Amino acid sequence: MSLPRIAIDAMGGDEGVRVMISGAAEARRRHDKFKFLLVGDEERIKRGLDSHPNLRAAAEILHCDDVVGGDEKPTQALRRAKTTSMGLAINAVKTGDAGAALSAGNTGALMAMAKLALRTMPGIDRPALAALMPTLGDNDVIMLDLGANTEADARNLVQYAIMGAAYSRILTGLEQPRVRLLNIGTEESKGTDRLRDAAAQLQAATGLALSFDGFVESDKINRGEVDVVVTDGFSGNIALKAIEGTARFVTDLLRRAFTSSIRSKVGFLVSRPATELLRHPGGKAD
Amino acid sequence: MSLPRIAIDAMGGDEGVRVMISGAAEARRRHDKFKFLLVGDEERIKRGLDSHPNLRAAAEILHCDDVVGGDEKPTQALRRAKTTSMGLAINAVKTGDAGAALSAGNTGALMAMAKLALRTMPGIDRPALAALMPTLGDNDVIMLDLGANTEADARNLVQYAIMGAAYSRILTGLEQPRVRLLNIGTEESKGTDRLRDAAAQLQAATGLALSFDGFVESDKINRGEVDVVVTDGFSGNIALKAIEGTARFVTDLLRRAFTSSIRSKVGFLVSRPATELLRHPGGKAD
Repeated sequence: MSLPRIAIDAMGGDEGVRVMISGAAEARRRHDKFKFLLVGDEERIKRGLDSHPNLRAAAEILHCDDVVGGDEKPTQALRRAKTTSMGLAINAVKTGDAGAALSAGNTGALMAMAKLALRTMPGIDRPALAALMPTLGDNDVIMLDLGANTEADARNLVQYAIMGAAYSRILTGLEQPRVRLLNIGTEESKGTDRLRDAAAQLQAATGLALSFDGFVESDKINRGEVDVVVTDGFSGNIALKAIEGTARFVTDLLRRAFTSSIRSKVGFLVSRPATELLRHPGGKAD
Repeated sequence: MSLPRIAIDAMGGDEGVRVMISGAAEARRRHDKFKFLLVGDEERIKRGLDSHPNLRAAAEILHCDDVVGGDEKPTQALRRAKTTSMGLAINAVKTGDAGAALSAGNTGALMAMAKLALRTMPGIDRPALAALMPTLGDNDVIMLDLGANTEADARNLVQYAIMGAAYSRILTGLEQPRVRLLNIGTEESKGTDRLRDAAAQLQAATGLALSFDGFVESDKINRGEVDVVVTDGFSGNIALKAIEGTARFVTDLLRRAFTSSIRSKVGFLVSRPATELLRHPGGKAD
């Protein structure tokens, strides 16, 4: 079976073409059966491919001039679904020209365009935004929804659990990823009605390819004891940004402290490889 | 004017008497007009006071045998409001015997007992839990509610803003603390109806001793750009625990990295004073 190819919005994201191409090249190195449809400015993509002949052999270019801006409203972007690199990458999935679309651009526009063009699978009412985060264990943890929808009812949460578990199974090979609902306590009585309702539904469900382990509090997300954390988009966004902000906060405090005395300065120089970890928390020391 | 005294539940908290006494002694050193009513086991309190003669001179002891357990349900604890150190400390405020009560014990029990015995001020419907957190700026930031109530409507949020600003004014001396509502974006259209409604009310209000600056995202709480962050108890609890968990996560990662090679080990030893900061993020390097 040949793998379907991946449509890439080569123009999206803060860093643009160079980074998108180099990411695709990295994926190609890891998976030599991957094929790509690179959507965007042909000249710039070609220049980007000059340093990645391996990718060039597996990629086709779909040229377009228009790009969705990072600050554009989704409603504005939607109108240019037929002309922008993001819109055309998504459209390639709709026509069957690609099996998946990838963009690092405007998230709101991406959600809106994808939802309109591709719809959701039967049984899934709404898409969700998911992120993969490092843990102290061997596994990464998937958290969703991170803000695709501000509010979620019990039915949405159950669907997010199923989607998150599917994502986890594919990434990790686990047959029954450990799924928990984000809550402000682990006792059954904690939280909102919709959380308790979703927990009851997941507890009662049979035949789901996941292991539902109840609630998790947000200080335990990164302990390595859970594979999928399910939450509404508001709480998920709050948790994700609190995690990002605190990692940056601790790094800044550390840098300040390390450079605050000559004695510490020596320590900072000597142990720089270790402090690099803070900038790339995905990497693990062993 | 003589300051009213402070009733202290000397038995509450994970560390118990010794830490409560030493905290009170520290407060007394900083504010030599403070007086204390120490509630709990008289023998143990007396022993604790042996190392703090300065506090002994300013403290009276109210003996009781009973203590609220850390895991007790609030409803259970409420029944022993007249016999426990926590209940009696709160009761001292009710009778006018003290001006404030302090406990490091079971938070749910403390909230329930205080609410029942003391009620809220006129114009305030519900109490809130608040925390003081360090920032990269010169100010600490107050965040509330952290879980006293799972849900909050616009009216509650406005009241939390007023209470948080009052707390901030007393702590910092600022006349108009900068107040923001926690949200998943800073544009006016972001978030839930109740958040937008609360923002409109705070925007329109006149005569409040605070400066309402709109929304803040949870990665900006600790930047030093806001004095009071207002949120519902669910989101506040999620944000607080995400912050605590991530600080611990980064510390653990660092410790692992620092000890992962001899070269780094030297760095860890040399710069230990700097890494101490991570364990006590309240302290600031300058």
